Amino acid sequence: MIEALTKELKETYQVVFKDISLLEQAFTHSSYVNEHRHLELTDNERLEFLGDAVLELIISEYLYHHFQDLPEGKLTKLRATIVCEDSLAKFAKECGFDAHIRLGKGEENSNGRNRSSLLCDLFEAFLGALFIDQGSQKANDFIYQVIIPKIESGAFSHEMDHKTALQEVLQKNGDISIEYKLVREEGPAHNRIFHVEVNAGGKLLGIGSGKSKKVAEQKAAEVALGDLNQK
Amino acid sequence: MIEALTKELKETYQVVFKDISLLEQAFTHSSYVNEHRHLELTDNERLEFLGDAVLELIISEYLYHHFQDLPEGKLTKLRATIVCEDSLAKFAKECGFDAHIRLGKGEENSNGRNRSSLLCDLFEAFLGALFIDQGSQKANDFIYQVIIPKIESGAFSHEMDHKTALQEVLQKNGDISIEYKLVREEGPAHNRIFHVEVNAGGKLLGIGSGKSKKVAEQKAAEVALGDLNQK
Repeated sequence: MIEALTKELKETYQVVFKDISLLEQAFTHSSYVNEHRHLELTDNERLEFLGDAVLELIISEYLYHHFQDLPEGKLTKLRATIVCEDSLAKFAKECGFDAHIRLGKGEENSNGRNRSSLLCDLFEAFLGALFIDQGSQKANDFIYQVIIPKIESGAFSHEMDHKTALQEVLQKNGDISIEYKLVREEGPAHNRIFHVEVNAGGKLLGIGSGKSKKVAEQKAAEVALGDLNQK
Repeated sequence: MIEALTKELKETYQVVFKDISLLEQAFTHSSYVNEHRHLELTDNERLEFLGDAVLELIISEYLYHHFQDLPEGKLTKLRATIVCEDSLAKFAKECGFDAHIRLGKGEENSNGRNRSSLLCDLFEAFLGALFIDQGSQKANDFIYQVIIPKIESGAFSHEMDHKTALQEVLQKNGDISIEYKLVREEGPAHNRIFHVEVNAGGKLLGIGSGKSKKVAEQKAAEVALGDLNQK
C-alpha cells in the first residue's frame, strides 16, 4: 500500500521521503489507530496541525507578491477560498491521496474516504510530513505544482472582483502593465456617467461605463474577461 | 524617527533591514496614510496579512516538536493563546515598537498607540517585513528571541494542563524523562482511589491521588509544579 504511494509521489511530484514512517503517519486516520491498538500507531492529526500553518504561509506569500494591488481584506478573503475544506479536499483527490489513507472499518463503511473534512485533513497532514521530512522548499515546490497553477488558470476567479481576475489572467505568463483610462464623462454632476477603457500591453481590451470611475473600471474588466474567455 | 528604530533593532535583535522603506511601511498605520495623502505612503496592513502567517508557522513548528505528547486539539488551543491579540500586543510593547508607529492625529488622540489590536497588527506587520527583507531564518531567530523564551519560562502554563506545564518547565534545558507511576490503589471497584508518583531524572517530585489514574497524574504534576515554583 505504502509502496504504491511512494511510487506515485516520486513519479508525479519528484518527492522521496527519507522517513517513510512519517509518510505512513500522514495517511493514517484516527479511526484506523483505534481499531488497531496493538500496532501502537499514531494518527495524522498533529501533522495536520503543522501542515495547516505550512500551507497558510505558502499561499499567503504567493498572494502577497502576486496581487500587489489587493488590500489586506481582499487578500484574506481570497486566501480563505483557496485554503478551505472543499478546495483542499479536491486537491487531495486530484493527487490521488484518497486511495491511500488507512481508515477504520466504520469510517470506511460510512464513506469516510470521500468526506471533505477527512480529505482536507489528509492533504494538510501530508504537507506537514513533507515539511518536516524535506524542508520548506520542497513543501513550497509541491504547492507550486498542485495549487498555484489552479489559481493562475482562474479556478478562484469567481471569488475575485473583475479587475483582480483580469490581472490574474493577464499576468500569469509574466508582468504586463494594465491601464484603466477615463475616456469620457457625461451628464450633470448629480447623475454623471463615466466611461473607462482598459488597455494591456498597448491593446484595448474593453470599455465599461458606470456612475463612478470604480464601477466603470469593473465593467471594463468584466467585458475584457468575457472576450478573453471566448478566445 | 526611523533612525532610532533601526538602531534599537540592530542593538537588541541584530536585525539590519536592507530595504528601509519596508520597515517604514510596517510602522505606518492607515490613519497616518489617510492624513498624509500627498506623501503617497502605503500602510502596514498587507504586511500584517503576511506576518500573521509567518508567526503561525514558526509557533506551530515549535509546538509540534516541543510538545510531542500533546494531541492536535491541545496544540491548537495552546497556539491560540500564544498567537492572540493580547499576547502579541504585549510583545510589541516589550520590543518598544509602540514608540515608533506613525499614527494619524485622531488615532493618537484616542490613545491608539496603546490599543491592543493596533499593537498586535504592528507586531505582525514587522514580522512580515522581516520575513520579506531577511528571509525565514531571521524571522525565526527574532521569534526565538522574543516569544519562545516566554513560553519556556511558563508564561502560558496556565493554559496548559498540569502535566504539560510540568513537562514544559522540566524540559526547558534539555530532554529529561518524566515518569508517572501508579503506587497504590484502594477501595472497592466502584469507588476506587488511585495514588500516583511523578519522578524526573530519578527524583520524586510529587504524589497525587484521584478517582482515576488520569486525575491522580494531574494532581501529582500540580504538586510538583507548586514545589518547583517555590524554589
